[in-house]
Parts: sequence; structure tokens; C-alpha cells
Amino acid sequence: MPKISNKGQQMPESPIRKLVPYAEIAKKKGHKVYHLNIGQPDIKTPDVALQAIKNTDIKVLEYSHSAGFDSYRTKLALSYQKIGLPINKEDIIVTTGGSEALLFAMGSTMDQGDEIIIPEPFYANYNGFATASGIKVIPVISGIESGFALPPISDFEKLITPKTKAILICNPGNPTGYLYSETEIQQLAALVKKHDLFLIADEVYREFVYDEGAKHYSVMDVPGIEENAIMIDSVSKRYSMCGARIGCIVSKNGAVMATAMKFAQARLSPPTYEQIASEAALDTPQSYFDEVIDEYRDRRDTLITEMNKIPGVKIATPKGAFYCIAQLPVKDADDFAQWLLESYDFNGETVMVAPAAGFYSTPGMGKNEVRIAYVLKKEDIVKSAQILGEALKVYQG
Amino acid sequence: MPKISNKGQQMPESPIRKLVPYAEIAKKKGHKVYHLNIGQPDIKTPDVALQAIKNTDIKVLEYSHSAGFDSYRTKLALSYQKIGLPINKEDIIVTTGGSEALLFAMGSTMDQGDEIIIPEPFYANYNGFATASGIKVIPVISGIESGFALPPISDFEKLITPKTKAILICNPGNPTGYLYSETEIQQLAALVKKHDLFLIADEVYREFVYDEGAKHYSVMDVPGIEENAIMIDSVSKRYSMCGARIGCIVSKNGAVMATAMKFAQARLSPPTYEQIASEAALDTPQSYFDEVIDEYRDRRDTLITEMNKIPGVKIATPKGAFYCIAQLPVKDADDFAQWLLESYDFNGETVMVAPAAGFYSTPGMGKNEVRIAYVLKKEDIVKSAQILGEALKVYQG
Repeated sequence: MPKISNKGQQMPESPIRKLVPYAEIAKKKGHKVYHLNIGQPDIKTPDVALQAIKNTDIKVLEYSHSAGFDSYRTKLALSYQKIGLPINKEDIIVTTGGSEALLFAMGSTMDQGDEIIIPEPFYANYNGFATASGIKVIPVISGIESGFALPPISDFEKLITPKTKAILICNPGNPTGYLYSETEIQQLAALVKKHDLFLIADEVYREFVYDEGAKHYSVMDVPGIEENAIMIDSVSKRYSMCGARIGCIVSKNGAVMATAMKFAQARLSPPTYEQIASEAALDTPQSYFDEVIDEYRDRRDTLITEMNKIPGVKIATPKGAFYCIAQLPVKDADDFAQWLLESYDFNGETVMVAPAAGFYSTPGMGKNEVRIAYVLKKEDIVKSAQILGEALKVYQG
Repeated sequence: MPKISNKGQQMPESPIRKLVPYAEIAKKKGHKVYHLNIGQPDIKTPDVALQAIKNTDIKVLEYSHSAGFDSYRTKLALSYQKIGLPINKEDIIVTTGGSEALLFAMGSTMDQGDEIIIPEPFYANYNGFATASGIKVIPVISGIESGFALPPISDFEKLITPKTKAILICNPGNPTGYLYSETEIQQLAALVKKHDLFLIADEVYREFVYDEGAKHYSVMDVPGIEENAIMIDSVSKRYSMCGARIGCIVSKNGAVMATAMKFAQARLSPPTYEQIASEAALDTPQSYFDEVIDEYRDRRDTLITEMNKIPGVKIATPKGAFYCIAQLPVKDADDFAQWLLESYDFNGETVMVAPAAGFYSTPGMGKNEVRIAYVLKKEDIVKSAQILGEALKVYQG
């Protein structure tokens, strides 16, 4: 029997999706499961996007351009310019989700055995993309005590080797909800400039910023690192269009874009209908975002309030995105999460959380932490926190 | 300035798309360009698929399952069973085009530096996927004299090393149009069994078979190689839905599927709307295919008749798919193809062909060959061949 690859064996399972079979057990028992485990918003997709698909009259569903529709790239560039980012059409390649943009970024800048430094905890699939690309993730630890702020630059510098090719950040952060300050972005910029590294920033949660006066700082808005900066973007969260699988890779570095274009040509084109929806989504009125951000702020505040009521729980208030990391009074959050689904219910209801260990690459880290996505209605968040509290009493006892 | 990767530098440009700027020059001059260079059919997408999208009422465009819609996989399995392939839902992961299925297949079975044997000429993007995956293509040459039949098994056997992990075929072949016989598939099956290799078969042109009594033999229908066989499939050509980017990877090898699933989870899910269209497309009436196949048979016969009228042209009659390789009386088909667009017109019209060198990985091969896609109306094919004939007179003179 032929063997599968080492790479395939090393590919991590999704820490978010691996508990799915246990959730199915819970549901088979008739238990209601509150999904705090996955960043699938319940927010409606803008009408303007969905209607654009209904109004499209295609006779032959043809390949589109490998870089994406010209009209979409033009309009997208304009939308970036409107928020102050100096991005032109030529700096954009439309991808099949932010996922593909990350793969193109890694493939264009890194070879087998090269290293990428990522503050952990980080979006679990970065491990998957790195493994698929044959590159090594070098984690730099950020802690719950500082609310997952940028680790000291000296911590990064200690890890830089001749094999280091890039630093990857997620801003605002999944799973931490941390929003980097202007100073932090400037520090990173100076660092990549000094060591000739790429700075790859996953900015798919750009709009999800909740605090008075808080502002998102993009790597595309830092003069002097035009050749270093690569931005990853996606329509998934912005417009609650996760199923569209439309994202983009953005850079002012012409060599990076020409190289990413070769990866893009190999896979021919991104999906057509969802590009149409994504282009139309750019006309979403500001009122939509205002409502959505208000709703998430409310959910965040509710979650933090409720979680802080549970003895032994430590939680860093997220400033953006719609996740947070919670430290629980348990030894093994993996076991606890499985137990919640398999063996527990509170009046026929339970919750599903994502054990945080999968968001770290340092073995042993995050064992007593879970990631919570606050993508549910406020009353469901209250209920979920209540169930978690009751469950912890039973589990600890 | 940070450097792009060696991998990125080695990524091949698309031989099909690289002449596009010259086509734009021709069009700017007001010349009509007949596109024989790209496999974008002009055939209408089945109504049933397009209507399914119009009839879909989505409020939140959510992620779908990483393996694709359960309902689609179930129905797809049934459609395979109907044509005699013993494929179950569990053997299928829906992918973003056949492209992604190939990437998953390579990633699941091969590591950096591993080797894959492919009869050449082959679909140019195999080079791209192999480079992106860090694996080495070992070509085995098939010739125009035999109509691009399977090279002798001894030719394969000579190339097998401890690093060889798989053999990849495209059946019917792009760019050759060759259809492997039952005996040839059996020979390959015996070979992969003997040497414990994977046999990856790109069968996206399965239905496009033109000759009386000719039959397509799938690697999924060979008893004894269940653990070796991996099938790549796609809706792109079958339903003229190239822009959908929906395909699948199929195997009875559970370890391969479990591994491919980890790659699938990392990228979350395939696009939602196009999965809806692809599922609905399975209800396309047989009459649609009958018409389409008749049309292509006619186009093929026309192309072969017309090309054979041109002095010095050698062409192997394709048995399937909608491509063929033509040997031209020129030294450098690359130069000729560019000249056709840049400097030539026949009554204001010219043709665009794909130089075949990009479909080989052996340097120097295919220099005087082009790939022709017969995806145009019969009268346009006649005209295109006429223009090619006239152009060759001028170019040679």
C-alpha cells in the first residue's frame, strides 16, 4: 500500500472542527448546542450582494481573469483609497478566500525550511498553511496578562535567523481580539526593514474595532515598508459572506505580485458568482456596518461581563474581531470541551468551545484556555456563559 | 528589499495566458482574434445549474462543510455509480476546481523532492502545482507518431527511483486528446501495484469521447488498485462551468482521504453558490451531452480535415477532450504564435494558439508544436485553419 506524505501526516487537524463528531452526539441526544467555537457570524449578508447574484444573467459560466475581475479590482482599490490606504488595482490579486491569499504569500516569499515568526496564540490554520508550504512557524509568545499585546521587539529579534523570511500578524487578532497600536505597527515596520523581512498582515477583521477612539493601523499605511508589506484580506467577515471564498492578496512589491500571479494562473481563476457578489458588496451602506459593529460591541461587553462572573475564569477584553481567549479553571481544555458535548447538559443545553492549544505552536501552551467566538445573539451569549459556569462546577467537582 | 522565494522564481508562467498582451495588441489594431489557445468552451451552461442559483434564497452566506455539501457528495456518488464507478460519498471531497484537487493529491502523497512521473506533453499547470508542492516532475515522452499513446511500460520503469511516489495521467488527455485503452490502464495499474505508487488520474474530460465504440476507462474501475488510485474531477468542462471552480478528489484509500481532509479544513470550504449549481447540474438531461458531444465531434473532424490541407502540418487525431497537438513547419512555435498576434493578419483576422513547449518539462521538446483547443464554432474553425495556412506561407517566406 502506498504511503501518505510526511507533510500530510504533519498537517494539523482543525482544532475548531475536530470536536464536530461530539457535537453530533450531543445533538442526537436532543441537546441544544450553543456554538461559541466557530467564527460563523449569524449576521445577514448585505442584500446588495445577494441581489447582484440573482440579477446576473450568465449563459456560459466562463473562467474569469486569474487576478480576478478587472472591475472588482478597480472598485476594491477605490474602497481602500477611501479609508486612506494607497492601494491601486495593480497591487491586488483576487483570491479564493483569505486562505488562498496566505498560501500565495507564503509560496511567493518562502522556501522549504524557511521560517516565519508569528505571535501566538494565532489563527490555527496558519499552522496548516505553513505545513502545506513546507515552512516552519517560529512562535513568539504573547500573554493573557497583557491582553495579548505585541511581545517586546527584542523577543522577535532573538528569534531571527538567516532562515527567517517573514513576520505574520493578524490584526485585529483571531483568536485574541487584540488590536495593534500605531506604535506597535511602527515597531514591527522598523524591525522588518532592519532585517529585510516581509511583514504579512491578515487584516480581515479591519472594521471590527469597538472602543471609542480606537483605530486600525494597516501595514499598507506605513511609509518606507512598501516592499516589505503584504496584506491579506477577505469578504468573509466584513459582509458575513464566509461561504463566498473571496479574498485578496495586496502588496506594492511588484516582484511579490508578479510571483503571486503565477500561483494564481496555475489555479486559473477565483469563483465567478461570488466575485459578482463581492463587487456589489462594496456598495453596502455605512449603516449596515454601524449596526453590525454596535451589535458586536454589545455582544463583547455582554460576554466579558458574564464570563467575569464565573469563579476562576480569566479573560482579556478583546478590542476587535469577534473572538477572545478565556483561561478556565481546568487542567485540559480539550478534555473539558469534549466532556461538555459528550457528557454534560444544563436543562438540555450545552456549549461548544474551541480548545486553545490548537492556536499555539509551542507544545503545552494554551492547555487551560479556550477560544470563544461571540457570534451569537446577546441572550444566547448570556445563556452560554451561564451553562459554562454551571458546567465548570460539575466538572471540577 | 526582501527577496521572493526560489519556488516563486521557478513557478512557470502559464503558456496559455502569457501571449495575452500580444492578443491585446492585435485587438487594439482592430484585428479579430480566433482563440484556439484556451480551453474555454463556448457551449451554454445547463439551464438547470444556472436556475438553481437564481432560485436560491440565502440570507447568511455561511461556510459550507470542508468536504463540500453532504447532499452534493451523496448525489455525485450516485452519478458515479450510474456510470459503473464504485464510488461512495465518503470517497469524495469537493474542491475548489480540479486544480485544488490536484494540490490536495500531491500534498497528501508527496514530500519536498519526491518525484512524480507524467507522460508528456501534459497539462501545463501540472508543472505549476508540482513546483508549488516542491515535487519534481519526471517526464516520460509520448510522441505524435503514435498519436500520444501510452509510452512503453519499460520507459516508466526505467524512471522509477526510491523518490517516485506517483504516476499522473490525464485521460482523455489535455493537450493530446489521447484516450487510454483498457489495456493501457491495466498496464499502469499493474505497474503502480508492483512499485507501490499512487496512480493519479485527471479525468475531467471523461464524457468527451468521440469515436464509435470508444470507451473511457477510469482508474476507479480497476479492481486491486483501490489503495493506489486517486481520481481528479471537475464540473468545468462537463457542464461548461469553468468559472464555477468546483471539482473533487476521489479515492478509496482512507488514509489519503483523511489527509486530504486536513488540507480541506485548512482552507475551510469550497464556494457555496457554485456548489449549488454543481449539485443541480447533475440533473442535466442526457440530450445536453449528446448535443455537446456531437458538436465537438464535428468540430474535431473539421479541424483535422482543414489542418491536414496545410502543407507541412502534422496532427494526431484526438480521440477525446477538445485539444490536439499540431506540429507546424516552423522552428520556434513561440515566436510564430507571437508573430501571428503582433505582426500578422489575414483580412483583419488572426489566430491565437498555445505554443506546446510549455506542455513539456523536457527542455527543447515541443518547440515546433502548438496546442489547439477546438472550442469554437465549425465555421470559425474553418476560418482559423485557413488563416493559419496563409500565415505559414508568409512566415516561412
